[in-house]
Amino acid sequence: MAKIRLIEVKEEIQADNKAKAEALRDRLKADKTFLLNLMSSPGAGKTTLLLRTIEALRNDLRMSVIEADIDSMVDAEKIARTGITAVQLRTGGFCHLDASMVEKGLEGLDLASLDLVIIENVGNLVCPAEFDTGAIKNAMILSVPEGDDKPLKYPLMFTVCEVLLINKIDYLQLSDFDVQAVKKRVLRLNSRIKIFEVSAKTGQGIAEWTQWLKKEVDEFRAG
Amino acid sequence: MAKIRLIEVKEEIQADNKAKAEALRDRLKADKTFLLNLMSSPGAGKTTLLLRTIEALRNDLRMSVIEADIDSMVDAEKIARTGITAVQLRTGGFCHLDASMVEKGLEGLDLASLDLVIIENVGNLVCPAEFDTGAIKNAMILSVPEGDDKPLKYPLMFTVCEVLLINKIDYLQLSDFDVQAVKKRVLRLNSRIKIFEVSAKTGQGIAEWTQWLKKEVDEFRAG
Repeated sequence: MAKIRLIEVKEEIQADNKAKAEALRDRLKADKTFLLNLMSSPGAGKTTLLLRTIEALRNDLRMSVIEADIDSMVDAEKIARTGITAVQLRTGGFCHLDASMVEKGLEGLDLASLDLVIIENVGNLVCPAEFDTGAIKNAMILSVPEGDDKPLKYPLMFTVCEVLLINKIDYLQLSDFDVQAVKKRVLRLNSRIKIFEVSAKTGQGIAEWTQWLKKEVDEFRAG
Repeated sequence: MAKIRLIEVKEEIQADNKAKAEALRDRLKADKTFLLNLMSSPGAGKTTLLLRTIEALRNDLRMSVIEADIDSMVDAEKIARTGITAVQLRTGGFCHLDASMVEKGLEGLDLASLDLVIIENVGNLVCPAEFDTGAIKNAMILSVPEGDDKPLKYPLMFTVCEVLLINKIDYLQLSDFDVQAVKKRVLRLNSRIKIFEVSAKTGQGIAEWTQWLKKEVDEFRAG
């Protein structure tokens, strides 16, 4: 039964964010719910990737999505059209989610009945990298039109993520984006990061990404 | 004589940012130096647009550029190669510039001998919109691959800008980006905004943009 919930969130004192994030992770482990925090610039393709991911995994995993936005509910509406429950967090002016906000988003969901919850964080390469949301893994999208210099300019984001999706590879034909240079720059910051080349629009590379994600969720749930 | 200066900036107490911004604007008016604050998502094309703008206006206007980045000096290095002086503000973790940071950036420049200083703000559609930098005008870039829903999701940014550059129009052939829908959404937020369609890569639309900017600078300097 698809539905959208709208929750207004406010930034809380950050001193104890790390502790809250750890407590949330413990709860997720107890409930065997894998929480993935998906980050990127505005317009890198988070929502389209989510739609592809839902399409690929909905028969195997019980999923839900938390959408964070400064304003509007357009992304949650797109997700809800798939029949998946979407929680919309409206952050007002805030540029990131913290663990308290995510906890508030999860309140509306029955965690024990979900295998995978994906957070679509606010579109921003700076602030979301600085706040532990309590997620089990962090993923980011870098899209081809953004340029191959982004690891040099936003190193923290590439450092805190376990997965990088290089999206919009269908734009490579029009772009001087150097995939190998990006990989080299990213691996220098974070040697253990997993990198996928995808086009959420055409579907290219989505099978590899979703198979990897499914395996991660299965391993997490098996403890 | 091209050079790069590197300045590390820290966020100050924001309570008096507005007052500092007003004081800075008064100083700019006294010195007849037009300060343009250029904002966008990461990878929307700020630096490439700046290079085109410098190329078009360098014989008519005495220019300088302030580059803001979390890390790295790659943008300032690109600007300095044109022979224009670039000041690099390294913001550490901060996601925006405020008036104090800009003031610090201007310290290294002889304002009275400059007609136009352009600030390339941190790549971010959220935080920079909230802080008055002291600029005379705010401009933003929305690039085609980011999608036409951005005015719905980041309304403040579109509201605080006097100019919108829709960049990467050479990507329209691969995209379902609806230029007319964007214009409608933006004008609903900000009916007085000036909109240009450009490709900083191919040069399309750059003449219209730089002619407009030149006219703004001339009018400002004439008082």
